[in-house]
Amino acid sequence: MKKITKAILPNTIRQRPVDSYKGTYGRVVLIGGNRNFGGAIIMASEASVYSGAGLVTTITDSANQASLHARLPEAMVTDFSQHTQITSLIQSANVVVVGPGLGDDANSIEQLKNVLATVTPSQIVIIDGSAISILASNNWNLPTTNLIFTPHQMEWQRLSGIKIADQTETANQQIRNQLNATVVLKSHRTEIYTETGCFQNTLGTPAQATGGMGDTLAGMIGGFTAQFADTTNAVQAAVYTHSAIAEQLARNQYVVLPTQIIHEIPKFMHENQASN
Amino acid sequence: MKKITKAILPNTIRQRPVDSYKGTYGRVVLIGGNRNFGGAIIMASEASVYSGAGLVTTITDSANQASLHARLPEAMVTDFSQHTQITSLIQSANVVVVGPGLGDDANSIEQLKNVLATVTPSQIVIIDGSAISILASNNWNLPTTNLIFTPHQMEWQRLSGIKIADQTETANQQIRNQLNATVVLKSHRTEIYTETGCFQNTLGTPAQATGGMGDTLAGMIGGFTAQFADTTNAVQAAVYTHSAIAEQLARNQYVVLPTQIIHEIPKFMHENQASN
Amino acid sequence: MKKITKAILPNTIRQRPVDSYKGTYGRVVLIGGNRNFGGAIIMASEASVYSGAGLVTTITDSANQASLHARLPEAMVTDFSQHTQITSLIQSANVVVVGPGLGDDANSIEQLKNVLATVTPSQIVIIDGSAISILASNNWNLPTTNLIFTPHQMEWQRLSGIKIADQTETANQQIRNQLNATVVLKSHRTEIYTETGCFQNTLGTPAQATGGMGDTLAGMIGGFTAQFADTTNAVQAAVYTHSAIAEQLARNQYVVLPTQIIHEIPKFMHENQASN
Amino acid sequence: MKKITKAILPNTIRQRPVDSYKGTYGRVVLIGGNRNFGGAIIMASEASVYSGAGLVTTITDSANQASLHARLPEAMVTDFSQHTQITSLIQSANVVVVGPGLGDDANSIEQLKNVLATVTPSQIVIIDGSAISILASNNWNLPTTNLIFTPHQMEWQRLSGIKIADQTETANQQIRNQLNATVVLKSHRTEIYTETGCFQNTLGTPAQATGGMGDTLAGMIGGFTAQFADTTNAVQAAVYTHSAIAEQLARNQYVVLPTQIIHEIPKFMHENQASN
Repeated sequence: MKKITKAILPNTIRQRPVDSYKGTYGRVVLIGGNRNFGGAIIMASEASVYSGAGLVTTITDSANQASLHARLPEAMVTDFSQHTQITSLIQSANVVVVGPGLGDDANSIEQLKNVLATVTPSQIVIIDGSAISILASNNWNLPTTNLIFTPHQMEWQRLSGIKIADQTETANQQIRNQLNATVVLKSHRTEIYTETGCFQNTLGTPAQATGGMGDTLAGMIGGFTAQFADTTNAVQAAVYTHSAIAEQLARNQYVVLPTQIIHEIPKFMHENQASN
Repeated sequence: MKKITKAILPNTIRQRPVDSYKGTYGRVVLIGGNRNFGGAIIMASEASVYSGAGLVTTITDSANQASLHARLPEAMVTDFSQHTQITSLIQSANVVVVGPGLGDDANSIEQLKNVLATVTPSQIVIIDGSAISILASNNWNLPTTNLIFTPHQMEWQRLSGIKIADQTETANQQIRNQLNATVVLKSHRTEIYTETGCFQNTLGTPAQATGGMGDTLAGMIGGFTAQFADTTNAVQAAVYTHSAIAEQLARNQYVVLPTQIIHEIPKFMHENQASN
Repeated sequence: MKKITKAILPNTIRQRPVDSYKGTYGRVVLIGGNRNFGGAIIMASEASVYSGAGLVTTITDSANQASLHARLPEAMVTDFSQHTQITSLIQSANVVVVGPGLGDDANSIEQLKNVLATVTPSQIVIIDGSAISILASNNWNLPTTNLIFTPHQMEWQRLSGIKIADQTETANQQIRNQLNATVVLKSHRTEIYTETGCFQNTLGTPAQATGGMGDTLAGMIGGFTAQFADTTNAVQAAVYTHSAIAEQLARNQYVVLPTQIIHEIPKFMHENQASN
Repeated sequence: MKKITKAILPNTIRQRPVDSYKGTYGRVVLIGGNRNFGGAIIMASEASVYSGAGLVTTITDSANQASLHARLPEAMVTDFSQHTQITSLIQSANVVVVGPGLGDDANSIEQLKNVLATVTPSQIVIIDGSAISILASNNWNLPTTNLIFTPHQMEWQRLSGIKIADQTETANQQIRNQLNATVVLKSHRTEIYTETGCFQNTLGTPAQATGGMGDTLAGMIGGFTAQFADTTNAVQAAVYTHSAIAEQLARNQYVVLPTQIIHEIPKFMHENQASN
C-alpha cells in the first residue's frame, strides 16, 4: 500500500489555461438530500463549487431548494419530481455524484436506478452514502462507466460482503477488481483502491469526526475528477486536500466543521497547484 | 456552594483520541422550535454541532427546516409529523435535548410526552424552556434516565414549587434530590445542583442579557455531555465555556449575540482542552 | 435647532448593570414585511437585536419567516394570520415598531389599526414607512402613547400637510406639537422634533443612499428606546449611531449596505457607552 | 479595437454628491430566476445592490424568495404571478435587467415579452442569458430604448446569425449597428460593441471560469448604468471592475466565486472613484 504524499497535489492540480471557460472545468450533477438529510447534498454541492467545478447542478427534494440557494446561489437546482429534466441533466454531466443524504425510500431507489440506467462509459459516477447501501441490497448490474465508490467500513461490508475485521488490502483489492471501480474506503486513514493498486491517506485529525465530512469529500471528489484528467490522481488529491485543510484548521479548533473545510479549498488549491 | 473555576475545562475537555470517528462523539437529538420559536432550536442545534457532537438531528416544525439548513447543513432534520422516525431517533440518541422554542401547544405536549415515554436509563435527557413548564403543569412520572433541567428562576419555581425569593441552596438541593436530576438554575450567577452538591458559575456579563442565550446553553450542554463521560463535569464545563466566551466578546461589544458565542466554541475548546 | 454631538452617546448608552437579565433591556415587537417587502422588516428586526434589545419578536407575512430565521435566529416570529397572538404580543411589548415593508394593502391597514387600538400610554410606538402613509390617508384618532414618527420628507408632507419646500423648523415643530409625538424627519441631515425642541444630525454620507437604511434606523430606534429611559436621548443616540457607523464604513466603501451597519452596532455602542 | 484601461474607473465612478438620496442612484428591476436557476437572479440582484444601485427589485419565481432575502434583505421582491405589479415596476425603473436564470419556458417568454412591450426610450434594458436566446428564436420588434445585450459567443451566434468562428470585429459591429444596441460579447477577453466603436477588456483570469459569472456581470452593469450618466463608460467600467476584482482574488484562490467578487465591489469602487 502506497502512502499518498503532498506530491499528489502539484501532480494533479494543474495551472488553469488562460484561455478557458467554465465548460473546461466540467459539469457536475449531484443527486441526494431527501426531506431529512438535505444538509448532506448542500455540503456536497458546496464542496464541488469551491473545488472549482465549472457548472454544478443539484438534484434534491424541493424542501432543500431555499437553503441550498441561501448558501450557494452558484448551484443550479432541480427537484426530484422533474423526471425528464433529471435524465437530461445526468446525460450532459461529466461527473455524477449520487448518494449524499439520499436516504433509502422509494424515491431514493428510483433516483439511483435512473442514474445507473442513464450513464455512459465516458462519464464518472461517484456512489456515496445510502446509494451504496441501496446497491448492496439490490441485484442490479453495474453500468459500464467510471465508477467511484466512497463507502465507510460498514457500507463497504454491505457492498463487498467483507466483514470490517476482514477488510484487508488483498480482500478489498479483489472485490474492487470485480467491481472494476475505484473504492475510497473511508476510515481514520482512508484507503483508495484503484486499478493500479492501493493508496493510503496519511493525514486526518479526530477534530474531523463530525457529521457531514463524508458528504463534503464526495463533493470534492466530484469537483476534482471533473477538472483533472487522471481520475486516480484526482481522487487521491481530493482525499489529501480534505484532510490537509482539516489538519490546518484543527491547529486552532477542537472540532472542524465540514463547511469550514469547504471555504478553505480555493486558497489551499492555489497554494498547492502545479508551478510553472 | 463551590465556585466553578477554569480548571473544569482541562479536567473535562479531553484530547480527542487519534483513532476515533463521529460515533465516538455521540448522537444528539434536539426537539423544539414550533412555528413561532424556530430560532431557539436552530441556536441550540448550532451550539451542539459547534461543541463537537458527532451527529446532530433536529426535530422541529417543518416551517423551520429551510432556515436551519441555510445556517447549519451539518444537522439532520425531522419534522414534527414524522412520528415513527421521531421515536426511533430518540431511541438511538445518546443525548436528547427537549424544549428550546417548543412552546406549550398540543403538539409540544405530545412531543415531550413521547420523549419521556421513550428514553431509557442509559440516556441523557436535557429538559429546557417550555418543556419545564409543561412538566410542571402535568402530573407525569419522570423517566428513569439521566435528567438535566435547565430552568431560569421562574421555571424553577413552577417545577420545584419554591418561590424565587426562597430559592436557597438548601431548598433547591432538596428538590433536586427528589427529582434525582442535575439542575442548572440559570441567573446572573448560574448554579448547578448535582448529586454531589452545588456549583456556582463565577462568570457572565450583562452583555449576554438577550434572547436565545438559554437555548444556546442547552445545546452546548447537549454537545458536552454527549462527548465527555463525567456528566456533572460536562455540565459545568458547558456553563463555564458559555460565559467565558461571552466575557471575551463583551470586551469589544455592548451586546453579545448567542450565535456569536456559538461560532467561538471550537477555538475556545481547543485552547482549554486537557494537555498531553 | 441644536446640533447632535457625540456627547449624546455616553449620555445615553449606560453601562449595563451587572445584575440584569434580558427583561431589563426591553421587549420590542416589530410589525411589517408583506409579501414584497420582507427584507425591510428583516433589517429592522436585525437592527433591534444588534442594538441590544432584550427580546425581539417579528410579526410579518409567513413568506418571510425562513429568511428572517436564516439571518437572525435570535428573533421570534409570528405571522400576520395569528390574530390573537399578535394582540397579546403588542400588549406585552415595551416598544412597538410598525411599518417597515408593511405595504398598504388591506392586511397592512388592519395590522396598523390593531396596533393603534391596542397600545397603552406606557408604551413606545414607532411608526415608520408605509404605516405613516396609511395614517395620513385615514381619519383615525392617534392613541395616547409615546409616539415616534420616522418619515422621510414626502411621508411627512402626507402626514403633516406641509409641502416639502415649506418644511421649516417652525412649521414642523407646530405639527409635532399637535401630534404630541417625536418626529424623526429623515433627510440628508435628519432632524428630530421633540417636546423640548429640534435636534439636527450632523453626520451622514451619500454612501448610505441605498434601500433599507430607513428600515434599519427604525429598528435601531426600537432597540435604543427599549433600553434607555430618556426617549428623546435614545432617539438622538440611535440616529447618531446609524450615521456615525455609516461614515466609518464609507472611509473604505463606495456604498454602505444597511446590514453592514447593523453588524457594527455592538462594537460602536461598546466604544461609546458611559464610562464609569 | 480600443483596450479598456484602468482610466475608465475614475472617468466613470463619480464621487457621490453630498446632498443625494437613494433615488439619485437609480431604480434597478431584475427579472429572472425560474424554479431551476434561482441562484442566477440572486447573484445578479446582489451585484446590483453591492454596485451601489439606489433601489433594487427582483422579479422571480416564488421559490426563490426565501433564499434571496436570506442573502440580501436589501432587495425588494415580486413573484412572477403578480402581473400588474410587474408592469408597474418595469415602468418605474431606470434600468431593467432581464434574463439571468430566466429559462425558456412559457412564463420566461411571457416575462420577456412584457418587458419589451412596456419599456420606453428613456430606460436602459439589459438583455442577458436565456432572454437573448428567446429573442433570437422569435420575430419580435425590438423596443426603442437603450438596449444592452450581454451574450456569450453562442448566444451572440443565435442573435446575430454570425457563427463563432466568424465573429470578427467588423461583422459584430455591423450587427450591433442594426440592433442599435450596446453588445457585451463575453469571452476570455470580453469585447464591448458600442455606437462609438469596440472596446476590449484586457483583464480576466481562468479562476473566474465558473457558473454565475455572467449573471453577476449583468447585475453589475445594471448597477453601474443606473448610477453613471454615460452608459458606454458605465458598461466598460462594470466589465473592468468585474475582472479586476477577480484578478485580485485569484492571487490567492484557485477558483473565484461570483459571490466573492460581489462582496468586494464597494471597496474596489471606493478605491477607484474619481478624485476631487
